[in-house]
Amino acid sequence: MNIPNPKITTGGLPASRKIYVEGTLHPNVRVPMREISVHPTAGESPLPVYDSSGPYTDPDAQIDIRKGLPQLRRAWIEARSDVEEYDGREIKPEDNGFVEGDRLTPEFPVNSRPLRGKEGKAVTQLAYARAGIVTPEMEFIAIRENQLREAIAPRDGNDWGANIPDYVTPEFVRDEVAAGRAIIPANINHPETEPMIIGRNFLVKINANMGTSAVTSSMEEEVDKMVWSIRWGADTVMDLSTGRNIHNTREWIIRNSPVPIGTVPMYQALEKVNGIAEDLTWEVFRDTLIEQAEQGVDYFTIHAGVRLHMVPLTAKRVTGIVSRGGSIMAKWCLHHHRESFLYEHFDEICDICRQYDVAFSLGDGLRPGSIADANDEAQFAELETLGELTKIAWAKDCQVMIEGPGHVAMHKIKENMDKQLECCDEAPFYTLGPLTTDIAPGYDHITSGIGAAMIGWFGCAMLCYVTPKEHLGLPDRDDVKTGVITYKIAAHAADLAKGIPGAQRRDDAISRARFEFRWEDQFNLALDPETARDFHDQTLPKQAHKVAHFCSMCGPKFCSMRISHDIRAEAQKEGMAVMAAKFREGGELYMPAEAKPELEPGE
Amino acid sequence: MNIPNPKITTGGLPASRKIYVEGTLHPNVRVPMREISVHPTAGESPLPVYDSSGPYTDPDAQIDIRKGLPQLRRAWIEARSDVEEYDGREIKPEDNGFVEGDRLTPEFPVNSRPLRGKEGKAVTQLAYARAGIVTPEMEFIAIRENQLREAIAPRDGNDWGANIPDYVTPEFVRDEVAAGRAIIPANINHPETEPMIIGRNFLVKINANMGTSAVTSSMEEEVDKMVWSIRWGADTVMDLSTGRNIHNTREWIIRNSPVPIGTVPMYQALEKVNGIAEDLTWEVFRDTLIEQAEQGVDYFTIHAGVRLHMVPLTAKRVTGIVSRGGSIMAKWCLHHHRESFLYEHFDEICDICRQYDVAFSLGDGLRPGSIADANDEAQFAELETLGELTKIAWAKDCQVMIEGPGHVAMHKIKENMDKQLECCDEAPFYTLGPLTTDIAPGYDHITSGIGAAMIGWFGCAMLCYVTPKEHLGLPDRDDVKTGVITYKIAAHAADLAKGIPGAQRRDDAISRARFEFRWEDQFNLALDPETARDFHDQTLPKQAHKVAHFCSMCGPKFCSMRISHDIRAEAQKEGMAVMAAKFREGGELYMPAEAKPELEPGE
Repeated sequence: MNIPNPKITTGGLPASRKIYVEGTLHPNVRVPMREISVHPTAGESPLPVYDSSGPYTDPDAQIDIRKGLPQLRRAWIEARSDVEEYDGREIKPEDNGFVEGDRLTPEFPVNSRPLRGKEGKAVTQLAYARAGIVTPEMEFIAIRENQLREAIAPRDGNDWGANIPDYVTPEFVRDEVAAGRAIIPANINHPETEPMIIGRNFLVKINANMGTSAVTSSMEEEVDKMVWSIRWGADTVMDLSTGRNIHNTREWIIRNSPVPIGTVPMYQALEKVNGIAEDLTWEVFRDTLIEQAEQGVDYFTIHAGVRLHMVPLTAKRVTGIVSRGGSIMAKWCLHHHRESFLYEHFDEICDICRQYDVAFSLGDGLRPGSIADANDEAQFAELETLGELTKIAWAKDCQVMIEGPGHVAMHKIKENMDKQLECCDEAPFYTLGPLTTDIAPGYDHITSGIGAAMIGWFGCAMLCYVTPKEHLGLPDRDDVKTGVITYKIAAHAADLAKGIPGAQRRDDAISRARFEFRWEDQFNLALDPETARDFHDQTLPKQAHKVAHFCSMCGPKFCSMRISHDIRAEAQKEGMAVMAAKFREGGELYMPAEAKPELEPGE
Repeated sequence: MNIPNPKITTGGLPASRKIYVEGTLHPNVRVPMREISVHPTAGESPLPVYDSSGPYTDPDAQIDIRKGLPQLRRAWIEARSDVEEYDGREIKPEDNGFVEGDRLTPEFPVNSRPLRGKEGKAVTQLAYARAGIVTPEMEFIAIRENQLREAIAPRDGNDWGANIPDYVTPEFVRDEVAAGRAIIPANINHPETEPMIIGRNFLVKINANMGTSAVTSSMEEEVDKMVWSIRWGADTVMDLSTGRNIHNTREWIIRNSPVPIGTVPMYQALEKVNGIAEDLTWEVFRDTLIEQAEQGVDYFTIHAGVRLHMVPLTAKRVTGIVSRGGSIMAKWCLHHHRESFLYEHFDEICDICRQYDVAFSLGDGLRPGSIADANDEAQFAELETLGELTKIAWAKDCQVMIEGPGHVAMHKIKENMDKQLECCDEAPFYTLGPLTTDIAPGYDHITSGIGAAMIGWFGCAMLCYVTPKEHLGLPDRDDVKTGVITYKIAAHAADLAKGIPGAQRRDDAISRARFEFRWEDQFNLALDPETARDFHDQTLPKQAHKVAHFCSMCGPKFCSMRISHDIRAEAQKEGMAVMAAKFREGGELYMPAEAKPELEPGE
C-alpha cells in the first residue's frame, strides 16, 4: 500500500522541552509535561505547563501517522485481566457511506482485533474507583494535574463550593471518579491516550470539534487539525464528521490521537439510513455504537434526554431546536409518535459502554440557540431527564458528563450551572460556550469565550470551543487555533478565579518577564508564542528591540515600567522602612503605608 | 494651502439607512440612528440601532476633513448666554514638540477663537442639571438611548442595584447628571459632538484609544483611525499621542470628531519638558490644560490620586506602576520628595474644567498591571483618594468619572466595582478591561473582553478597549476594528445582562433571521457585516448559497434548523393544543407540557 505520510505539524514550541515525570505507585506511568525556560538573568527555574500535545512535540518521537501512536495504556489494560480480544464487527459498506474506489478514504494500514470486557465485567474507571483501585490512569492524572507544583501552594479564588485540594493525590482522583464528580474518558480500544480527567475539582478542560461534512474537508486535513488543535491545548477532540468515509477517517484520527476522542454516533447512524431521520432504528444505532466503541471512541454524545412530550415545548421558540442530534430525535419522535428509542434503550446503551469504558456525554438536544430561548422550559425539562439518565448510567458503572448550552446571557449562566449540579448530582458539566449575545457572527469565539470563562469559574468542567466561523462556515486551521487559544484563555481565567493552586504561576512568570523587559520570555511564556512575537515585530522588527527597555506603545521616554524600575531602585537605595517613614503623612483618609523590608531585585 | 484630503472611510453599512429623530423640547435636536432593513419575507420593520459613526456614514453629508464637521451644538451653547469668545492662548513651538518645516503636521485650515465660561459661570452640564435645566444635549441623549423602543419594553436581567428606567426621559438624564451618576462629556469648544452619556443607568459605552507615538504613526492615520473606530461603534476616542506634532494632530482629530475626545494632558506636558518627569511643573501642566481645553478636549485623564505616600506601596509589586501618567507622577513625587502637584492644585484644575466643561476622568495611576497585583493596598488607597477628589470636583460643578483597572482575575472584579461605587458615591466607572489573565499576549482583546463584559454587567459605565496588540505594539486599522468589535460585544452582553429594556431586540432579530435562513439579514444585522459575509463565503461562495436552507457546517441533511421547521410545520398542522394533549404522558419527573395556542409563522 502506498499511502503518503500527510504533512503533520511536529516539533516543540519555542524555549520548551518535553519532560516525563514517572509514577511511584505505577512506575511505568510517564507523564508528559512541557518545561518553558526563561532567560538566565531571571534566575528562575523552567516553568512546567500542562501539555496536551502528545508525542508530536517530542523531538525524540518517531511520528508516522500510518503506524499510529504507541499504545501506552495497552499493558495497563491487559494487566487488569478483565478484557478479551475478539473478532469484532465486520466493516460494512454503509460505515463509509457506500463510497467506493478512489473516493474511499484508505483504510488505516494496521489492523488489530478489538478488546471488550469479559462477560459481566465493567471495565470502566468508575468501576475500578468504586472498588477502591487506583489505576495507572489515575496516578497519571494526579501527576499531570499538579504540574510539579508544591504540595502546599498559596490559595486564592472563589470556588463556589467546589472541593479543590491543595495537592492532587491519586486517591483523590479515584474518589472523585467514584463519586461521579469526574470522568476519565479512556476506551480500552484507545490505548494511545494520555489519561486526562474532566471534573469540577480539577483544571478546567477544553474540547475542539472537527470533522468532515458533506460539503467539504478530507481525511488528511482532519488528522492534521486534530494534531494542530492539541498542539495549542485542546484536551479532547470531538469528531463530528457527517459525510462519507466516516469510519475510515475516524480510524486514522483515533490511532493518532493522544487525547480522548468523542463522537455523536447519531450522525453516522443517520448516514447509514441515507439521512432520513424517520428511518432510524434502534438496531442501526446500536450497531453504530458497537462499531465506534470497537474503534476506541472515548465518549459518546447521546441525546437520550429529548423525549416525545418535550418537542411541543420548542415550537414557540425563536430558534427551535438547534442541536443536530436533538432535532433528529425530535423529528423521529414526532414522525412515529413514539418515545425516543435512545431513552427507551438507555439501559442497553449503558451495557455497551461498560464493556469498553466509553463515557457518556449526555447531549443537550434542546439547548437554546438564541438569547431569547435560554433557560426555558424545554431546556430545563431535558436537564432533569439527563439527571435521571445519569443515575441509570452510574448504576451500570458507566462514567457520565452532561452537555450544556449554548446561547445564554450573562445573568442566566449561573442558574445553568447550579441547576446542572443539582439535577445531575454533581456529574461534570460540559458546555458549548455559552454565547452571551447573538449579534456578532464572525466573533462567536469571543461572545462565547466570555460565557465559557464564567461558567468555568462557576464549576463547568469542560468547555467546548467555538471558532470564529460558528454559524457561518467550517473552521480552517487558523480558526481552529483561534478557537483553541480563546478557550485556553477562558479555562485558565476560570482556574485562576476558582483558585486552583499553582494556576497563577504562569501569569506571574510572564508578568515578571514583562516588568524586566525580557521580551523573548514574554513570547515564550505566552499561550501563542508565534503570534505574540509576530505582533511585536510588526512595529519593532529589529533584533535590538527585543532587548530594548521599552516598547512601541509608549516609546522610551514614557515607559511606565522603566520609571517603575527607577522608583524601585530609589526605594532600594534608601531602604523601604526609611522611605515609608519619611512619606507617612497619615492623611485622615488613608492607612499609613506599612513599613516594608528591603526589596529583593527581580522578586 | 494645499493639503490633500486624506482617505477617510465613508458610506453607510450594508442595508442601513441613516435617520434623524427630532426633539420635542428642543426642535433643533436631530438624533442620528441607523436603521437596518431586513428581507421583506420577514415582515419586520427596520431595526434602529445606536449609531456613533457621525456624518461619515450619511450619504447626504459632505465630508471634507479640511473643513471639519458641522458645529451642531454651537447654537445651543450660545443660546445659554454664559460663554464668551476670546483670543485664546497662543500656540507655542513646544506644543508641537519644537518640530519645524516639513516635519510639522500642517495646522488645521480653519482657525476660530475659543469660548469660555463668563467670569464666575460654570458652563457644565452638571451645573445646568443642578439648576433643573434640561439642555438640548440631555434631550438628544434621551432620544438616543431609547433607540425608538416602546415606552414599556419587557424587562429581564439583573442590574445589581442600578436604577435603569423603562424609558429614558430628558428629565431622567438631567437627574442622573445632577446626581453625579452620569456625565455628558461636551466641551463648549467641541460643538461638533453628538451628545452621549456615560453612566450606570444607561447603555454601556466603549472607548477606543489612538495616538501617535515617538516611534510611529502620522496625522492622517490618526484621523482615519478615529473615523474607523466610530464606524464600528466607539462611543468616545482618547488621543494618547506622545510624540511630536501633538497639538496640530489633535486639532485635526477634534474638528472631525462627532464623539467626545479624551486625553491625558500629562503626556503633552511631559513632551514640553523634553520627557524629563522631574522637570514638570504646575505651570507647564496648567498651560497644557488650557491649551487642550481651548481646542475642545471633552475629558481629561488626571492622575491626581497618585500621592507621595502611596509610592512605596508599589515597590513590592510584580509589575510596579504600569500607568504612564501614574509612573510619571510617582517619579516626580519621589524625586522632589513632595506631594503631587496635581493633588495640591486640584482645585485650580477644577476651575479650568468648569470654564469649558471638560469632564474629569480621574486616572488610576496605581492600577494593577498583573494578576498578582490586583486589588492591592496601593490600588485601593488611590481609589479612596479619587473619591475625595470627586467631591471636590462636584463642589465646583465639574463632571467626573473614575478610571479603573487593569489586570484582575474574575473573582476580584466585582470587588472593584463595589468599592468604586462606595468610594466615589456612584460617579461613573470607566475601566480598561480588566484582563482576566496575563498569559495571552496577542489575544488581550479577549482576556480583557471577558473582564469588560463582567464589570459592565456589574455597573461599569464605559469600557476602554484593548486591542490584540496590547503589550506588544501599536494597533493598526485591523487591530482597532477588532478591539472595537470585541468591546461592543462586551458592552452589549452587559446591556443584556443588566436588562436594559430593548437591548435584546437586535439579538432577537438576528436569531429570527438565522432560524429562517435569511443569510443576508444575518450579515446585515451583525456587529461586523463584512466579516460575517466573508466567513460565510469562504466555505460557500456561490450566490445561491445565500438563499440555501442550510449551511456548510452540517450540510443539507443534518440541518437542525431545517428539521425544526418541519417540527413547527407539523405542530401547526395539528394545532398545538391537540399535540400537547396527545404527547402529555405525565412522566413523574416532568410538568405536563402546557397547552399552547396555535402558532404564528415567523414569530
